[in-house]
Amino acid sequence: MTTYSLLILPGDGIGPEVMAEVRKVIGWFEENKGLSFDISEDLVGGAAYDVHGIPLADATMQKAQEVDAVLLGAVGGPKYDNLDFSVKPERGLLRLRKEMDLFANLRPAQCFDALADFSSLKREVVAGLDILIVRELTSGVYFGQPRGISEDNTPGNEGGRVGVNTQRYTSGEIRRVARAAFELARKRGNRVCSMEKANVMESGILWREEVQWVHDNEYPDVELSHMYADNGAMQLVRNPRQFDVIVTDNLFGDILSDAAAMLTGSLGMLPSASLGAPMENGRPKAMYEPVHGSAPDIAGQGKANPIACILSFAMALRYSYNEGDNAALLEKAIEKVLADGVRTGDLMGAEGGVPVSTSGMGDAILAAL
Amino acid sequence: MTTYSLLILPGDGIGPEVMAEVRKVIGWFEENKGLSFDISEDLVGGAAYDVHGIPLADATMQKAQEVDAVLLGAVGGPKYDNLDFSVKPERGLLRLRKEMDLFANLRPAQCFDALADFSSLKREVVAGLDILIVRELTSGVYFGQPRGISEDNTPGNEGGRVGVNTQRYTSGEIRRVARAAFELARKRGNRVCSMEKANVMESGILWREEVQWVHDNEYPDVELSHMYADNGAMQLVRNPRQFDVIVTDNLFGDILSDAAAMLTGSLGMLPSASLGAPMENGRPKAMYEPVHGSAPDIAGQGKANPIACILSFAMALRYSYNEGDNAALLEKAIEKVLADGVRTGDLMGAEGGVPVSTSGMGDAILAAL
Ligand SMILES: CC(C)[C@H](C(=O)O)[C@@H](O)C(=O)O
Ligand SMILES: CC(C)[C@H](C(=O)O)[C@@H](O)C(=O)O
Repeated sequence: MTTYSLLILPGDGIGPEVMAEVRKVIGWFEENKGLSFDISEDLVGGAAYDVHGIPLADATMQKAQEVDAVLLGAVGGPKYDNLDFSVKPERGLLRLRKEMDLFANLRPAQCFDALADFSSLKREVVAGLDILIVRELTSGVYFGQPRGISEDNTPGNEGGRVGVNTQRYTSGEIRRVARAAFELARKRGNRVCSMEKANVMESGILWREEVQWVHDNEYPDVELSHMYADNGAMQLVRNPRQFDVIVTDNLFGDILSDAAAMLTGSLGMLPSASLGAPMENGRPKAMYEPVHGSAPDIAGQGKANPIACILSFAMALRYSYNEGDNAALLEKAIEKVLADGVRTGDLMGAEGGVPVSTSGMGDAILAAL
Repeated sequence: MTTYSLLILPGDGIGPEVMAEVRKVIGWFEENKGLSFDISEDLVGGAAYDVHGIPLADATMQKAQEVDAVLLGAVGGPKYDNLDFSVKPERGLLRLRKEMDLFANLRPAQCFDALADFSSLKREVVAGLDILIVRELTSGVYFGQPRGISEDNTPGNEGGRVGVNTQRYTSGEIRRVARAAFELARKRGNRVCSMEKANVMESGILWREEVQWVHDNEYPDVELSHMYADNGAMQLVRNPRQFDVIVTDNLFGDILSDAAAMLTGSLGMLPSASLGAPMENGRPKAMYEPVHGSAPDIAGQGKANPIACILSFAMALRYSYNEGDNAALLEKAIEKVLADGVRTGDLMGAEGGVPVSTSGMGDAILAAL
């Protein structure tokens, strides 16, 4: 029997409490499905800063490189808002993404039938929505050099400062994330829409040309379209179901995937996977995390919805452990719990339901399993 | 009697036909309100490229610098999609913005009562929506150097290329657009929300600090909040009415204002103003344009909705000609026409209405005046 290694990084805010529910789910799979996990747990974000003075210790980074998969809760909180840029909680997350070279960030935006009325959009616009945003995660303006703030005395700015960041993409960086998007599209609706601002940015022109090149040379069977990112934002609001897979850069992906997530009305439900190149065992380097943040306002109160984090573990089952059937089993159990009207506070709407705490939701999912 | 100078640049696609309706409205104000306009008309975008081989001739640029206001229709179309970056229709528009130094782009997102059901969002989420996005328009990644595409052979990219753009903001650039936002907020709900990605970009840190500085030193009476742009995109979808004035940079403003425009369901209704520094007469340099694009698919068919362009002229009356009362008169007339059920195709919904062509809508507005 294979033992799957997993590094759990609960992080800040509601991270630890949603992760506790994932632990229960993992226990269930060990007991009932004979899976075996080698779990280690460590600090990231503000929690790591409190202990180490940096948001990710080198030993933790090293460990992340060695395991089959990392599962991260969330990072950040008001306590850390005034820290220096270089040690902010976010830097821990960004370091993991960069050093593990997790270039393809998969962000499904799915509207769960039982929750369609939660969306601020009309039911008929979002019911059945199932799109996948593939965001480039290791380059672009997040990491480009030069960057920084310096003094500047150009005319009109005497005695002032200047802030600089660099958007920078190579052909290789664009091609590899395009390939990931085309591969995923083949298993879904077979359509990819690539978004950039090629009308105003040269990096967007290169993006468009390279995605087109990968399509023409390697994936001519997949339908490819291009859209300016501003129009993309509009179309996501107007008629999100027109999309299957969207591929875009790090910064546009950050904004567009959050907008897409909010369309579903189920932010507390959405998982994500960040994948890198294949390791020796053929599976990709991988980190999984819920799309929601650390939600400091409700942290520690048992109000958080653990489903996004549990669904992130389901993605780990599928992409890292090759346990697609068990992933589907877990996803089915969650659908059943929702259909039964079991609801954490964020899911409690006009039609009522069975109110549960964070751990109550975990228990309900175990029962459904 | 003062004569107001106006340069009309109809541009491409539906630009000319919506501009014809503005001409009628201008004629009405000349005949009935004793206003006097000195109107010149010229080419921009693809229309200019066809004649001059560039999307904005120097003489046109010169003229734009001299008039009280420029009114632009729209630029671009499939015919010009494969032109070199340097002569694309968009470059004409960007040159006008840059050389006139129109740093404050005002994009109101208003939901018209008669049209609230057109939104893909629920009526209760958008009814009465009235937010104003102030987008920085002359700097940031749109204009920053270095930029371009070049050969690159870094490991993993052998034989490949690299695309670079630079996000660059000075204190002075940030402060002046912040001031514009605070001034506008004082005449509205007195609240400004500033959006950036200060958690990952140094230029965002500078943005946040300078906006805060302007607030603390010059506008302490206005309520100021800060939000990450990805969260901003989410909040615009979740509950747009929480905002009054949003101030943000060129690229975020491009995306967020388009998302906000689409929330209203009335894209064919939304005007914009781009304002610069005061000229000798005390009024700002200014260009006005509808938010919608050139809509090549319906161009020349009399289907376009001229209201966004007519409302852009109303903004010119208010901000460039100091004719606030006449601006309000025109806006009222448009509201009446909508309340009467007069509808171009884009406004025709389930509840029906009186279908009119582009010129039919112009005539209805004249009648209502
Ligand atoms: C926390 C932050 C650094 C991060 C990002 O901007 O990528 C987050 O918004 C996300 O989308 O995962
Ligand atoms: C046409 C294009 C260059 C322009 C922009 O990106 O600014 C447009 O999208 C806008 O928002 O006015």
